[in-house]
Amino acid sequence: MKKFIDNVLLAVEDMVEGFVSVYDGIVKKVPDAQVIAAKQKKEGKTGVVIGNGAGHEPACIGFVGEGMLDCNAYGGIFSAPDPMTLLSSIEEADTGNGVLILVSNHSGDVLNSKMAVDMAREEGIQAESVILYDDILSAPPSQAKERRGTAGTVFAYKTAGACAQEGKSLQEVKRIAEKTRDRTRTITAALAPGISPLTGKPMFYIGEDEIQMGIGVHGEAAAHVMKYESAQKTAAFMLDKLMEELECGPKEQMAVFVNGCGQTTYMELMIFYNEIRKLLCKRKIPLLTPLVGSFVTTQEMAGIALSVCCMDRELETYWRERTVTAAFPW
Amino acid sequence: MKKFIDNVLLAVEDMVEGFVSVYDGIVKKVPDAQVIAAKQKKEGKTGVVIGNGAGHEPACIGFVGEGMLDCNAYGGIFSAPDPMTLLSSIEEADTGNGVLILVSNHSGDVLNSKMAVDMAREEGIQAESVILYDDILSAPPSQAKERRGTAGTVFAYKTAGACAQEGKSLQEVKRIAEKTRDRTRTITAALAPGISPLTGKPMFYIGEDEIQMGIGVHGEAAAHVMKYESAQKTAAFMLDKLMEELECGPKEQMAVFVNGCGQTTYMELMIFYNEIRKLLCKRKIPLLTPLVGSFVTTQEMAGIALSVCCMDRELETYWRERTVTAAFPW
Repeated sequence: MKKFIDNVLLAVEDMVEGFVSVYDGIVKKVPDAQVIAAKQKKEGKTGVVIGNGAGHEPACIGFVGEGMLDCNAYGGIFSAPDPMTLLSSIEEADTGNGVLILVSNHSGDVLNSKMAVDMAREEGIQAESVILYDDILSAPPSQAKERRGTAGTVFAYKTAGACAQEGKSLQEVKRIAEKTRDRTRTITAALAPGISPLTGKPMFYIGEDEIQMGIGVHGEAAAHVMKYESAQKTAAFMLDKLMEELECGPKEQMAVFVNGCGQTTYMELMIFYNEIRKLLCKRKIPLLTPLVGSFVTTQEMAGIALSVCCMDRELETYWRERTVTAAFPW
Repeated sequence: MKKFIDNVLLAVEDMVEGFVSVYDGIVKKVPDAQVIAAKQKKEGKTGVVIGNGAGHEPACIGFVGEGMLDCNAYGGIFSAPDPMTLLSSIEEADTGNGVLILVSNHSGDVLNSKMAVDMAREEGIQAESVILYDDILSAPPSQAKERRGTAGTVFAYKTAGACAQEGKSLQEVKRIAEKTRDRTRTITAALAPGISPLTGKPMFYIGEDEIQMGIGVHGEAAAHVMKYESAQKTAAFMLDKLMEELECGPKEQMAVFVNGCGQTTYMELMIFYNEIRKLLCKRKIPLLTPLVGSFVTTQEMAGIALSVCCMDRELETYWRERTVTAAFPW
């Protein structure tokens, strides 16, 4: 495998060791657990944690810190952290006011987080979970709860994290996470696969002239395999699909997230965002500060996840709040 | 070409339009000129500008803002901005106290910046330039001034920018840029080429089992084509070469910059940095806050530029100062 990875069994721990040394003012590693925690612990605050498989960096280690996640429990590459690791992250984040665990909807993550919540409650920790799903091409609207969690879950990390930072209760933070999820929709389009560090091989096949629409963050099968025509047509197709399910209310604004999946260049992301911006402008939809960059990656997959979230004043406030994290840009 | 770029002639302007709308609190576009300028202009401040070809994003548009660059004059993809564009950036940055233009050592950039400085002086603007070179494999130490400018030029953008922000004179800002350059060394290693948006083709050839050492930011020929063995050996080779030319003084610390060239994953960058950190630890060299991420790219080239700068207290202060930019992480 032609990557700067020598031993795939050590890759995640080596990465984490490097990461923690780079951002040692913001994060720390919890001893004897695969958990990254915020360095500054705010007493009395509702904890917000997430577990995820490694390989999607900077998600989610890069979102740990003031105003966002208290902890990230990480698994191996593309595999969910086990229940004990998730429990450690809940214990670390708890200051007596309870902990919300956000769960990106993938079977291993859901199963393990349920067990972790049960164990935490047995320990007397108030623990709650919210399952996040946003990939509209992975199941029809009538089965929205079956949809996969993809890049758009970042909206809920941000708003729930900011809500908790403000000192709100566990139930209130949970409400905000659910409200954000229910207003978020995502589609991911891929032009070329990433290389799995586990196998050294492309994670899926994609034809020379094809674009795959609705692919998952681990390369899960796309809903549509289409001929790739242009960025402009791709942007229009994706936005149309998203808007079929979502309508901003009269006093609401839209937050847009254009996520690069790995090797997509900054130039392409900005061009794509500009196209989306113009399309939304034509629809007379007011825009909030967007998020544009490679935040939730599938190794070096070439692709873009387009995610939108209709925000009212309440969510907008949480979206705009500053964070102190390694990767979130404000 | 399978990128999210429809028309290569419009790509740079479309990107800039998107970029400015995303970061409209930090930057603005100068009307009728290919120049990105900081939104907040500080009266009386020495101006700091740089010109560069597009295609290396987030460099250098992402470094414009408080505490770093006042302006970035951008050319077409991989081509230097013309003298008139550079002059516009100097005019925009001038508040009466003069402007320093930083020049990454490439023939077009050097030639055009000389002309721009001459024209600015004719207009009565105090203009100075500093040529930046850091790629140690592009020429021997005796011909250091012939070396190419590569990722390590970012050190000088940062320190000169912070120095100017503090209200220092043009001569002082120039001294800091030169001092930083003289203490910076870089090597870039590539595992796979990027695709030029201009041709739709790989920018150079690299064998399946090879690593190219000393490649330029536009894919200029590497000094060494070697068999790729491991991240560990690559890190040791690169650091050894850099340290042959550089020694930190007794009260100095080393700032390390591990730059991803495009498609290199966050995981690989952190693993590589961790290796470098351990090697420097063995050499008992104290480390400053490092910079790790994909900042100076060659489209989706797979590779890492390793850059080090020996900093005394003066440079350290400027290195640590906060910025308000789109891409610099602090």
